[in-house]
Amino acid sequence: MPLSRRTITARTLKGFRDFLPAQARERRRITGVIEKTFEAFGFLPLETPTLEYADVLTGKYGDEGEKLLYRFTDNGGRDVAMRYDLTVPLARVVAQYRALQKPFRRYQIAPVWRADNTQKGRFREFVQCDADVIGSKSMLADAEVILLYERILTALGVKNIAIRVNNRKLLNGLLQTLGITDEQIVAVLRSLDKWEKMPGVNERTADLERAVSKPAAEQVLALLPESADEEWGAWTDRIAGSLKQSKRAQEGADELRAVVDRVCKQVRNPQCTVTASAWLARGLDYYTGTIFEAVLPEKPEFGSVGGGGRYDELIGRFTGTHVPAVGMSLGIDRLMAAMEELGLLQQGTATARVFLPLLSDELTDDVFRLAEMLRESGIAVETAYEASKLEKQLKYADALGIPLVVLFGTKERAADTVVIKDLRRRTQKTVPRADAVLTVQGLLVVNK
Amino acid sequence: MPLSRRTITARTLKGFRDFLPAQARERRRITGVIEKTFEAFGFLPLETPTLEYADVLTGKYGDEGEKLLYRFTDNGGRDVAMRYDLTVPLARVVAQYRALQKPFRRYQIAPVWRADNTQKGRFREFVQCDADVIGSKSMLADAEVILLYERILTALGVKNIAIRVNNRKLLNGLLQTLGITDEQIVAVLRSLDKWEKMPGVNERTADLERAVSKPAAEQVLALLPESADEEWGAWTDRIAGSLKQSKRAQEGADELRAVVDRVCKQVRNPQCTVTASAWLARGLDYYTGTIFEAVLPEKPEFGSVGGGGRYDELIGRFTGTHVPAVGMSLGIDRLMAAMEELGLLQQGTATARVFLPLLSDELTDDVFRLAEMLRESGIAVETAYEASKLEKQLKYADALGIPLVVLFGTKERAADTVVIKDLRRRTQKTVPRADAVLTVQGLLVVNK
Repeated sequence: MPLSRRTITARTLKGFRDFLPAQARERRRITGVIEKTFEAFGFLPLETPTLEYADVLTGKYGDEGEKLLYRFTDNGGRDVAMRYDLTVPLARVVAQYRALQKPFRRYQIAPVWRADNTQKGRFREFVQCDADVIGSKSMLADAEVILLYERILTALGVKNIAIRVNNRKLLNGLLQTLGITDEQIVAVLRSLDKWEKMPGVNERTADLERAVSKPAAEQVLALLPESADEEWGAWTDRIAGSLKQSKRAQEGADELRAVVDRVCKQVRNPQCTVTASAWLARGLDYYTGTIFEAVLPEKPEFGSVGGGGRYDELIGRFTGTHVPAVGMSLGIDRLMAAMEELGLLQQGTATARVFLPLLSDELTDDVFRLAEMLRESGIAVETAYEASKLEKQLKYADALGIPLVVLFGTKERAADTVVIKDLRRRTQKTVPRADAVLTVQGLLVVNK
Repeated sequence: MPLSRRTITARTLKGFRDFLPAQARERRRITGVIEKTFEAFGFLPLETPTLEYADVLTGKYGDEGEKLLYRFTDNGGRDVAMRYDLTVPLARVVAQYRALQKPFRRYQIAPVWRADNTQKGRFREFVQCDADVIGSKSMLADAEVILLYERILTALGVKNIAIRVNNRKLLNGLLQTLGITDEQIVAVLRSLDKWEKMPGVNERTADLERAVSKPAAEQVLALLPESADEEWGAWTDRIAGSLKQSKRAQEGADELRAVVDRVCKQVRNPQCTVTASAWLARGLDYYTGTIFEAVLPEKPEFGSVGGGGRYDELIGRFTGTHVPAVGMSLGIDRLMAAMEELGLLQQGTATARVFLPLLSDELTDDVFRLAEMLRESGIAVETAYEASKLEKQLKYADALGIPLVVLFGTKERAADTVVIKDLRRRTQKTVPRADAVLTVQGLLVVNK
């Protein structure tokens, strides 16, 4: 009770955000669409803790990733860390609860934390929406999680969607034919990930030379497509000899072909393209086969809105046994930033559809009874807490964007009527009190 | 890619939990009902970060509370802490964004973290559901947030609900008439909070004597009701003299009466009782007027499922100005534990209503087309990823609790039919492929 008297500055940590009602509502609408799409394919919700033992998370994200962990010692002396993504906790869960039915289709929509630098719309707390299939090595699973991008983005009104797919077995197998070691491959993939942003072949060679020798760099450049868009058939014809040399590369190419074919058959949005692209690398260490990402070609400056891939070795880190797995992830922050520029975000703060002013205290019982009648019909209603001038109360309702006002004063009580004001159309009508609910329902249909 | 080879034990931190699909689904259903109830009264969603500057949170929860903060130094050397409740971050938001329309009705459903001991179903990460009204000093606001308990619990099928209400001004005013200092009052309230669990007056006196002198302890006991259930009118008559001595106490009693009367008028559930109870104290330091809690009389062993009160001074800690506020909180963990014992939790893991087996690879196109037809009609459908024996696939669907199976094999392809199996009723029928959607819709209505 005796609170300390020092005033504290109200402020938010850098990289962390408050979502005020208008934003929070739209975020909920969008995650609702995503959740519904996941469930339409039978994916099941999973919730995991914010904090994990640090060793559950370390050793999976690469050196750069690991530096970004929010890691600390808790009051009990445990080495703990905040969730960095939703994939590693899922792998832990699958290892921990062996009785889960397989294939296990799980989704999780939850915040993750990365102590990254905050420039360029990057945040330290952000929400990921993930859907993964555990326990199936079928390429139909890979195709299904990729298809989710098309279904979600189309449902949100995004027209143009580009999905690129690649395969780590293909990349690794091809690079191995050049005698490049596993350690070097990691570095080559990191370089490959940046090629599209590099203006010319000289920059690419120079960047590659940080990973491998100059002759090897030239061989890599010659073996991979000349551009991100080099036609797939032409490229695979050109490298047919290398593919024959590597069973692994050939297997990767076959998987990639099967996945792209299947997704293309399922896609309904005519403005969604799905292409095999050997320039796609994806940063994370744990991918083993299919990799993919989704971008919005109208807003390339936002980068990919999501990506994912197959990670058949990750769960084995916990169990010691092989459990195949593939999953997709979608970040709602970049997506919403792009949707905002595309004019696809919905406006409006209020949850209530009707506001009931209070003109004098003695009317409280009647006004609250009216409110209950409306709520019983499934209409969200806000009542005033204090009797005050009508003008002030209407201004409040209008500022929040509540479309209708039901007015009940002493005059209306005498006549057993209510006045229903449509704040958007600036119209009003007087109806018998008994007709209030039906009239409001009718106006709300029109106001939709 | 070269993941380290050491196997890691998959385990969860003490006090933290994984929610596997069946639990996660039911948690989502329950928070959905709560959210819908909040919105029916016009409350607006707010999201605040998991981490706050430590000084935003410290000095508000009392010494005991403050010890439970998950507090650490981040990579940038900042003193930060994980959210301990949803009220203090709300106060920070209201201070930080002055343009928010008032009264500001906000709700937030989010996890909070307390490094508490974990015995007796207490967790270190748990979800709170809060609704608060900022910027109104009207007792109608207090009544509305209290009423939310009745609406939520009734909507969830809980029949018996007991809501107790008290007022800190009443308690403080009465204790001041005995010459008890503000510091001592905090300790007296802590003691009062435990009285109900104490078997007799001797224990209460002994406990009180830790806060005040023996004569003062006896005076306190004589002034307050003899039991938690002493009839309110009889008690206030008995202490009428003390009430006359303290303007503050009288104001508290008037507020309490107004709140209880208003809630009683609004309550629709005949098995919900709302009573004024001078034995209710509530632990938190920041309450200034109305305080309340909700319990389930059929399951008293779970304690209160939620509580709250008025905290007119808290926002001033940030702004330096007076902003009245009142709010309720509901913890879904205790609630769900009680609901489980009352048989009110819903069962079932699957989100999909229909499972489509795959009997051979060449049927994939047809099976997936069927799946899409069903999804387009709003039915959640899961398909197999691998052709395998039908028996194995049916067992999987049954284990997940998917009610229907649509079977399409080579025989059905030849006849242009499908076989629809009802796994619960153990019936099946063959219908033309074109009738599959309608038949499934009909069976799902029956299966609800």
